Amino acid sequence: MSVPGELNPPVRVLMGPGPSEAHPRILRAMATPLLGHLDPCFLDIMDEVREMLRQVFRTGNELTIPISATGSAGMEAALANLLEPGDEALVCVNGVFGNRMCDIVGRCGAGLVRVDAPWGSPIDPEDVREALTGCRPKLVAIVHAETSTGVLQPLEEISRLAHQAGALFLVDTVTSLGGADVRVDEWEIDAVYSGTQKCLGAPPGLSPVSFSSRALEAMDSRKSKVQSWYLDLSLVRKYWGEQRVYHHTAPISSIYALRESLRIVLEEGLEARFARHKANSELLRAGLEKLGFEYLVAPEYRLPMLNTVIIPAGLEDAPTRRKLLERYNIEIGAGLGELAGKVWRIGLMGYSSSENNVNLLLSAIGKLMNG
Amino acid sequence: MSVPGELNPPVRVLMGPGPSEAHPRILRAMATPLLGHLDPCFLDIMDEVREMLRQVFRTGNELTIPISATGSAGMEAALANLLEPGDEALVCVNGVFGNRMCDIVGRCGAGLVRVDAPWGSPIDPEDVREALTGCRPKLVAIVHAETSTGVLQPLEEISRLAHQAGALFLVDTVTSLGGADVRVDEWEIDAVYSGTQKCLGAPPGLSPVSFSSRALEAMDSRKSKVQSWYLDLSLVRKYWGEQRVYHHTAPISSIYALRESLRIVLEEGLEARFARHKANSELLRAGLEKLGFEYLVAPEYRLPMLNTVIIPAGLEDAPTRRKLLERYNIEIGAGLGELAGKVWRIGLMGYSSSENNVNLLLSAIGKLMNG
Repeated sequence: MSVPGELNPPVRVLMGPGPSEAHPRILRAMATPLLGHLDPCFLDIMDEVREMLRQVFRTGNELTIPISATGSAGMEAALANLLEPGDEALVCVNGVFGNRMCDIVGRCGAGLVRVDAPWGSPIDPEDVREALTGCRPKLVAIVHAETSTGVLQPLEEISRLAHQAGALFLVDTVTSLGGADVRVDEWEIDAVYSGTQKCLGAPPGLSPVSFSSRALEAMDSRKSKVQSWYLDLSLVRKYWGEQRVYHHTAPISSIYALRESLRIVLEEGLEARFARHKANSELLRAGLEKLGFEYLVAPEYRLPMLNTVIIPAGLEDAPTRRKLLERYNIEIGAGLGELAGKVWRIGLMGYSSSENNVNLLLSAIGKLMNG
Repeated sequence: MSVPGELNPPVRVLMGPGPSEAHPRILRAMATPLLGHLDPCFLDIMDEVREMLRQVFRTGNELTIPISATGSAGMEAALANLLEPGDEALVCVNGVFGNRMCDIVGRCGAGLVRVDAPWGSPIDPEDVREALTGCRPKLVAIVHAETSTGVLQPLEEISRLAHQAGALFLVDTVTSLGGADVRVDEWEIDAVYSGTQKCLGAPPGLSPVSFSSRALEAMDSRKSKVQSWYLDLSLVRKYWGEQRVYHHTAPISSIYALRESLRIVLEEGLEARFARHKANSELLRAGLEKLGFEYLVAPEYRLPMLNTVIIPAGLEDAPTRRKLLERYNIEIGAGLGELAGKVWRIGLMGYSSSENNVNLLLSAIGKLMNG
């Protein structure tokens, strides 16, 4: 039998759309020997993770847990637990992840109303208001930080509109959580999901989610079973709640890593962390503008953790990214969907958001442009 | 904000139904700095994992990959990709995991035909033959190693019956893979899933799956989309295949760990590994019988990696397990479902299957029985 050699990957500077670099403390946590998923000591760790997640989501929601799969599974968990065949959902779309929500809404057997904005622009609340005059959706769904375009979406007005229409408000914070403010209770978000591998700075593998009491009522009054057994929160809740009923074997090491990443987030402090993400993004902008780059997104809607820049004329997309990777071990992100070949997505997320990383990237790009 | 202290769990001897102990090399692999999920070096790692999984599953199946969630998600992926509303499935049930398959079949909108056997006994092929005279299922599903009872299910005759009836043959190898023989091609298994945290000895988080060309044809001729976007293999395949189309962010660290665990499995050799699991199970049996324990399962159907013993009269269930955990740091498994309170499930899986662990457990149980 043929067995490959030892694991020996190059050490990369991760400045793409995620995964970001994991802090050495988080990598060390991953290497901690396993506990059983019903060990009392592991149950304590679960409680600590829930409590820290509540602080990071700024919520008192009882059902605040990590789903045992990556961020897209969190998206599916939120939609599949809230929607049933015959329901209607209004989804705001200005990038890949809004489109993904539409796909999942259809798989849930629910009707879809779309509100679109150009890729690179935020959703206009007026468009949501108008769409709501013609439908009665069970939920309004939107992406807070569109990873495919770099747009930061203001949420408060659309939250008000959703609730006025009697709908739940569902928000994708995969890329924002831990890097920009997410105020679940204050903004009256009913369902929210995120990922561990962006601004929380842990490896990919879990999707933190949180649900309001309104969302729980909607789940409790379903007429049909959730179509996914694995993501059925009526079952998952019993393991994370006081009953501790076995559902599936929790991904122990990933929860260790999430715990350590949340400790690091809270030790730094949310406000300090957001300020760091913003400051490094400004540094990057100043440098890139000197090199002749322009941004896709208007200044007031730019994400600090994901900077989408238009590739200047004369600079090749894939070959330049390849040189960055091969010569400098720096990963940046390509354009996705209709932006493929037109933009780069430069991540400054979590531990990867550092002045040193900004300096490394700027000097490498500068050399490639002049070489 | 309140931040809990450093991660400092007790070091346990894991002899329950999984997770088993991870080899130090696997823990070290988990701590390896991350690559991006589209990094050429990570794509190479994915290819190595696929090739090693094929060796462990003893298959040439092209679609042999790890699903990015735990074993139960593999179960759901297999069923949800093969079944559509209106299909019929025959599920063999002699424990918790057969029941779980029935639940998922219902969520897929498919009709269910059950063939039951008492918990602790294997499924009788005659019962399958008889059931097949009254239905035309798209698939016949069965558990190879029932983790809730400790039964090893012979598969070859039921595979023949399934194929004679024009059905696909789907097998749960969560607990057997890496600890007992699983011959996907020779036994004509069309869909198979497993977990990483049992006899492969990696942390929980991934579910290796493999599908035959017959199963791929069934997927390709679906009339409806797979209800789960996250588990939709028509999309997941494009990331693991030559196209490398982004679907979701792969759980990088878990794939590092799986790679290392597969290297360890293949370095030991499958036959040697199966023999070790069997030998340690025999040692355990000899010791437990001396202490007065009886087994739930007839000798010829006992799993070597999961030993289900009847709790002797006079020995309390939960208090004894608690003492094993608190005094000796040894975890064993409680009974599940209708066996709760009646049996213990003692795992000897992967790295946990060692003569030293057997000796530790026997002496600890002996002391508790005499103390």
